[in-house]
Amino acid sequence: MFAHNKRLQYTVRVSETNPGLANLMLEQFGGPQGELAAALRYFTQALAEEDAGRKDMLLDIATEELSHLEVIGNIVVMLNKGAKGRLAEGVEQEAELYRAISGGGNDSHVTQLLYGAGAPLTNSGGVPWTAAYIDTIGEPTADLRSNIAAEARAKIVYERLINLTDDPGVKEALGFLMTREIAHQKSFEKALYAIQPSFPPGKMAGRPEFTSVYFNLSQGGPALHGPWNNNDNWQTVSDRDAQCAVDGGDGSASVGLTTAEEALLNRMAARTMSDPGAEPLTGAELGAGAGVNHQQVI
Amino acid sequence: MFAHNKRLQYTVRVSETNPGLANLMLEQFGGPQGELAAALRYFTQALAEEDAGRKDMLLDIATEELSHLEVIGNIVVMLNKGAKGRLAEGVEQEAELYRAISGGGNDSHVTQLLYGAGAPLTNSGGVPWTAAYIDTIGEPTADLRSNIAAEARAKIVYERLINLTDDPGVKEALGFLMTREIAHQKSFEKALYAIQPSFPPGKMAGRPEFTSVYFNLSQGGPALHGPWNNNDNWQTVSDRDAQCAVDGGDGSASVGLTTAEEALLNRMAARTMSDPGAEPLTGAELGAGAGVNHQQVI
Amino acid sequence: MFAHNKRLQYTVRVSETNPGLANLMLEQFGGPQGELAAALRYFTQALAEEDAGRKDMLLDIATEELSHLEVIGNIVVMLNKGAKGRLAEGVEQEAELYRAISGGGNDSHVTQLLYGAGAPLTNSGGVPWTAAYIDTIGEPTADLRSNIAAEARAKIVYERLINLTDDPGVKEALGFLMTREIAHQKSFEKALYAIQPSFPPGKMAGRPEFTSVYFNLSQGGPALHGPWNNNDNWQTVSDRDAQCAVDGGDGSASVGLTTAEEALLNRMAARTMSDPGAEPLTGAELGAGAGVNHQQVI
Amino acid sequence: MFAHNKRLQYTVRVSETNPGLANLMLEQFGGPQGELAAALRYFTQALAEEDAGRKDMLLDIATEELSHLEVIGNIVVMLNKGAKGRLAEGVEQEAELYRAISGGGNDSHVTQLLYGAGAPLTNSGGVPWTAAYIDTIGEPTADLRSNIAAEARAKIVYERLINLTDDPGVKEALGFLMTREIAHQKSFEKALYAIQPSFPPGKMAGRPEFTSVYFNLSQGGPALHGPWNNNDNWQTVSDRDAQCAVDGGDGSASVGLTTAEEALLNRMAARTMSDPGAEPLTGAELGAGAGVNHQQVI
Amino acid sequence: MFAHNKRLQYTVRVSETNPGLANLMLEQFGGPQGELAAALRYFTQALAEEDAGRKDMLLDIATEELSHLEVIGNIVVMLNKGAKGRLAEGVEQEAELYRAISGGGNDSHVTQLLYGAGAPLTNSGGVPWTAAYIDTIGEPTADLRSNIAAEARAKIVYERLINLTDDPGVKEALGFLMTREIAHQKSFEKALYAIQPSFPPGKMAGRPEFTSVYFNLSQGGPALHGPWNNNDNWQTVSDRDAQCAVDGGDGSASVGLTTAEEALLNRMAARTMSDPGAEPLTGAELGAGAGVNHQQVI
Amino acid sequence: MFAHNKRLQYTVRVSETNPGLANLMLEQFGGPQGELAAALRYFTQALAEEDAGRKDMLLDIATEELSHLEVIGNIVVMLNKGAKGRLAEGVEQEAELYRAISGGGNDSHVTQLLYGAGAPLTNSGGVPWTAAYIDTIGEPTADLRSNIAAEARAKIVYERLINLTDDPGVKEALGFLMTREIAHQKSFEKALYAIQPSFPPGKMAGRPEFTSVYFNLSQGGPALHGPWNNNDNWQTVSDRDAQCAVDGGDGSASVGLTTAEEALLNRMAARTMSDPGAEPLTGAELGAGAGVNHQQVI
Repeated sequence: MFAHNKRLQYTVRVSETNPGLANLMLEQFGGPQGELAAALRYFTQALAEEDAGRKDMLLDIATEELSHLEVIGNIVVMLNKGAKGRLAEGVEQEAELYRAISGGGNDSHVTQLLYGAGAPLTNSGGVPWTAAYIDTIGEPTADLRSNIAAEARAKIVYERLINLTDDPGVKEALGFLMTREIAHQKSFEKALYAIQPSFPPGKMAGRPEFTSVYFNLSQGGPALHGPWNNNDNWQTVSDRDAQCAVDGGDGSASVGLTTAEEALLNRMAARTMSDPGAEPLTGAELGAGAGVNHQQVI
Repeated sequence: MFAHNKRLQYTVRVSETNPGLANLMLEQFGGPQGELAAALRYFTQALAEEDAGRKDMLLDIATEELSHLEVIGNIVVMLNKGAKGRLAEGVEQEAELYRAISGGGNDSHVTQLLYGAGAPLTNSGGVPWTAAYIDTIGEPTADLRSNIAAEARAKIVYERLINLTDDPGVKEALGFLMTREIAHQKSFEKALYAIQPSFPPGKMAGRPEFTSVYFNLSQGGPALHGPWNNNDNWQTVSDRDAQCAVDGGDGSASVGLTTAEEALLNRMAARTMSDPGAEPLTGAELGAGAGVNHQQVI
Repeated sequence: MFAHNKRLQYTVRVSETNPGLANLMLEQFGGPQGELAAALRYFTQALAEEDAGRKDMLLDIATEELSHLEVIGNIVVMLNKGAKGRLAEGVEQEAELYRAISGGGNDSHVTQLLYGAGAPLTNSGGVPWTAAYIDTIGEPTADLRSNIAAEARAKIVYERLINLTDDPGVKEALGFLMTREIAHQKSFEKALYAIQPSFPPGKMAGRPEFTSVYFNLSQGGPALHGPWNNNDNWQTVSDRDAQCAVDGGDGSASVGLTTAEEALLNRMAARTMSDPGAEPLTGAELGAGAGVNHQQVI
Repeated sequence: MFAHNKRLQYTVRVSETNPGLANLMLEQFGGPQGELAAALRYFTQALAEEDAGRKDMLLDIATEELSHLEVIGNIVVMLNKGAKGRLAEGVEQEAELYRAISGGGNDSHVTQLLYGAGAPLTNSGGVPWTAAYIDTIGEPTADLRSNIAAEARAKIVYERLINLTDDPGVKEALGFLMTREIAHQKSFEKALYAIQPSFPPGKMAGRPEFTSVYFNLSQGGPALHGPWNNNDNWQTVSDRDAQCAVDGGDGSASVGLTTAEEALLNRMAARTMSDPGAEPLTGAELGAGAGVNHQQVI
Repeated sequence: MFAHNKRLQYTVRVSETNPGLANLMLEQFGGPQGELAAALRYFTQALAEEDAGRKDMLLDIATEELSHLEVIGNIVVMLNKGAKGRLAEGVEQEAELYRAISGGGNDSHVTQLLYGAGAPLTNSGGVPWTAAYIDTIGEPTADLRSNIAAEARAKIVYERLINLTDDPGVKEALGFLMTREIAHQKSFEKALYAIQPSFPPGKMAGRPEFTSVYFNLSQGGPALHGPWNNNDNWQTVSDRDAQCAVDGGDGSASVGLTTAEEALLNRMAARTMSDPGAEPLTGAELGAGAGVNHQQVI
Repeated sequence: MFAHNKRLQYTVRVSETNPGLANLMLEQFGGPQGELAAALRYFTQALAEEDAGRKDMLLDIATEELSHLEVIGNIVVMLNKGAKGRLAEGVEQEAELYRAISGGGNDSHVTQLLYGAGAPLTNSGGVPWTAAYIDTIGEPTADLRSNIAAEARAKIVYERLINLTDDPGVKEALGFLMTREIAHQKSFEKALYAIQPSFPPGKMAGRPEFTSVYFNLSQGGPALHGPWNNNDNWQTVSDRDAQCAVDGGDGSASVGLTTAEEALLNRMAARTMSDPGAEPLTGAELGAGAGVNHQQVI
């Protein structure tokens, strides 16, 4: 079970309020690469995990991400404190309040008007957080790779946020949060590579005739090479015909139908056939002026 | 910050696996009335809360809801344990596995196929959790009412789940979770009514001429009365004309336009006018057989 | 069935066009606390309602909310009338039109560019309305509480909007709409408390040993008390150990597995074990410069 | 404003309850082609409409669609009445209730468990209705075409539903609703073609050198012809090279950069270059067994 | 299968970078009327199409729309190139970078901060693309009408974008893309009207007594007429009573219940009855100051 | 630009129709780990890519994924061919059609009823595809890791699907698609590790005092160790106090407020204070029977 301590994992010291900056910080609160996604990703993995050590690690890190969610959330609400009172008590001239709420140059108006200058679970554009952000599928050789990638992405978004503010307290807290993504990535990498083998992921081997083929499907300029296609390990297929129907068949799709099924499909096809020999008058032509003087027929 | 203890708040004892039942339990894991919504609702309110006592209560309850999320999540993964191994190791005949995954009679196939028989943050229909479920707006006299209602809803969904299983361990744990919603509702009620006044919510008074009017807008049967419309406190308006334009105006909408704005609107109106006197041939008529023999004109 | 009268419930008089203000008004048109959500919430409850009086009340109020949707929608289109003609007829210099559409300081560009300066069913951030906003669950003792809370939230958002404009006609219409939320809340309260008993909601009683326990889960500062935890009615549990496994068990989760299920799970666990004694080279280490000179091995 | 009459537009007579069938009917209640989408599509168009006659027509039809929403909603709740009582009062054996809720063979379990066997605004798969279904853009020559298409789609889904039930009362009501889609399509067609010209839609002419070109981009089988590409009005381009860069340019994308912008991009490119001459050891190779015995270096 | 040529279908020449304009262009990249929706709409229709000629046309146009997606995507990334380097390399003063990212006057901050100044699949408001935008239902007489409407809408949004920029290279490429929507609409119109009959869509005829009725549901002003309601083909029903229960029944909804079902519903009704004769004290009254001095009773 | 060849990349041979299996296959068509997500992920990365070789690779693989989308889409429509004709032509007894559409045991009813037994862009639960599935952020050292993880996940879902069918043609085509995910993962790994350094991702270094700390936040059982926390590289912090406020501060959050801001916040706090000393009568108590006999006071 969870417990809570009123002290934050990292002290938050904000120099002055700024609802526009608060809004940008939401990316790491309720955005796709943010702390909620991280916490829930690892927490749900932990629940279903069969490996005791990995389960423990996932719970450790999930709990830390929840604590980070609290840190970034506190940055948001501190930056929004000025807007909160102004909006709730409504003592300004309306025109001034309108300017304040509209003039930020980003979507902070949603946060203020709809969410009362709190810390909503949206990204900086106001898009509500969705579990569609979480890509856990319940297989450790895939999920650990997803976690590694997620930590890398979160690290980058923190880097961008750090570059956007010169408030030293905010910068320092963001630097801590960014650093922890590095540490978590390292842990997940260790856990992944401690599974042997972990490639190919899962249980089933690939079909060997296709594991090292590179299909050169984008053409029309100089051929470019790199380790992803240029050495003895890769067989590159550039011929357009050889790229089709690589099984040696005719590249069609077919299905065995019962007689009844076929009859119904034929009936549907007959009913909805676009007669290739027709040259029908169309709605576009009517719209462009054809057939204006007519006798109605229906 | 948050901490975690490996013991659950309530011991989970499941008699036997059942992926179909697991799937139904997801309503309280990743569904709209579930524990994630509860935890995040109170956690985000706590962050922005100005009242120290209420902030503390919100953090206490948010933390408990996280712990409930863990309990219900463990029920889900226990019920799914059979499906998990079967799916990952794939040792059955395909036809049997297909029957197992399709035959549950509810959406457990999504949980198994896509999420590996874990505990995904979806409802029982596979719809991903979204922060659109959270209705916090940052005003205590509204948010506490939202919390009261949310606890009432969660209580009911637990009641329904309890009626669906005769596994005594599951029933007992669900009964605990259901009971805690009752306790939380009581706390939120106390916090709401300890704000005086709390009605009307917010700061602004209503316009007195409209606060006790009841518009009888659905007619055509016997007039029904209840305390919501039948006593001296309500002035019921049933006359259809008197229901319109209750300000005494003409019920139209108007705006002051500049000359330039008006000119552009007129231009648009002229360009897109549907000529009321026309009797045009239409695409529907063409489609019904009119105008088939024609000379193309575009 | 529904009928419509071309007069609005409240006359809308807008002084001058303002697409930025129009955009903010969308919160109560297609936003989560807006009139569409209200109308559909009560309409769908009415459909399934068994109590004749309550069904009638729900239809009365649903119909009124539809009429309010029309009022706020007309405010939006009046405020957008200038933008509509300018955009559709495109007669300005491009740079001026670009400035007009981008310079509002909020998301009005979406409304103009995508929706033609009409009244789209989005909130002020352009997020499409979703039925996920509606929390009806089909049990009156819960749904009426949800309605009470919804009216409270809508009242607050109107209050915020009123503070944002000094256009007297807009202020007056918004004031009417806000007031009606107060009246509706009063009706729903009467309907709720006319059910006896309505607490606990639903049919099932709670487990008495847990209905009045308060878990003090957030610690680390001064203990704060209020009526939600401080009187004879509450038994507060602050001890960390006593908060776990409150059923007296060991706080673990268990399930009865068949032998076959257990065997498959063991197989999966073996295949995916992260060897705790390994010290593997990882991708992160490769990325940081380890193992650069090597012989490829796959 | 709207008014309501307690009589439905069409009497609903359901022979017996059937939650599975109720669930399928949801397609026309809260599904993408259903009555809510229709009602709101026309209602929002009406609000912003400049043409008085068309505005009136849109309000007439929007109001009728709301009345249809009520008819289909009543079909849903009648079919669900058995489930509603069973679920709310919970008097059956749990195992029987579980079978009843799970055994329908479609998603009715969501409707029952989460929505209390009411009429939720979802499709038959439980996906909440979203305003993303509405494609209004505020230009009549496009919107009327969207309306024509929407009526055609709704007509088809009703046709499918009619084929699914032999309950005569349900069949009859669905037949009425289906027929009205035909009538509405006819009205919208008249309104569209009464705008002259209505093609091309909008105000701007196309570039004449591209309005009648047909790019034969899917090749590899017999050339198929029809009125969409086979007459004197179309210039078909089949040569792969002639399909690229049809403006006669080189088909590249370019932008004028300032010196500072270019310098920063170069810096980024240098930092993130994938060295084409490298042959790096990768995580996949580690995962496949390479580099297992090593000295850690970070 | 698909192949790719590095040359674009239309050369993209952008004069200078402009992240604000890039953001508006996203409407046609990841917006509801954009090229991705078009490509996937036709591609998925092609997969299930039974008519060989139409299938070929759908694949031709789907492939072209993918190529258009690439053209508009290149416009976006060219316009964003300045922002991309600035953001990634972070060499400016923070305050300047903050101004650059916040000051665009539209939602370009999301694209920069979250998506690294690339071309995300969102609209200009940052809303992620969703397949809910695609209205294909698998019946050609409906789908072709949907395609015609979709092309009309896309044409209009391009028209609006063209009016927003004076960059000649961007204008020219957008003009090409807009023109192709006209050509595609023409092809789809030919394919639709080459099906005879295509109206009513689908297979089932309407009930003749309702196909030409016009319900005058919006009243209260002058009666307006047009070809949608004013000729011999329409029978207009304006009488309010005659609009209800048009089947001649009583306009009620009924269902045959088993005795057991009825008993359970009665039990639920009794439990949840709102007593019409009660005059209960409510939470609102408590909140307004009633009952403050009391003896607690629970 | 894109071109299309009517031959598939892999020949699809389906033995017999099966709408239930078709529905499960949708996971790789319109599901989160499916081919559409893959194609669009790499395509959008390619557009913004500055490295010529990597851009070429991304376009090659994006084009292949589109071709895979076509292969899996054809499997879906072949499996659905029986349902398609039956549904469109509606010649069966209704009860049989109802059983056919409802009896599949999974969500195929949505595909049939709403999408006409085509290949909709949903997952197997009917959830529409959303760009929220795509996690591209425009930084190669993160995006390539995301791609590696995405290929691993897609490989696993194919593995699961292969285990569900014994149709040899379906199994073979799925085996090809699964194998290509392995090949793509290998290419992306090569591209990632050919960037030196690629760890930490991005440009900014972490704060060294936090990069190798492991917070042991989940306690209460045996301490578990693995390479993610157990060697000389990690400094494990288990003390609860030492886990809080790791910066050495007090763990609070603070912000500099102007006098005006503080005054407004105080006003709001006063207005909304929950009086800790109150013992208010609440709505829950009224609902439980308190205060029933009263004099109304509002």
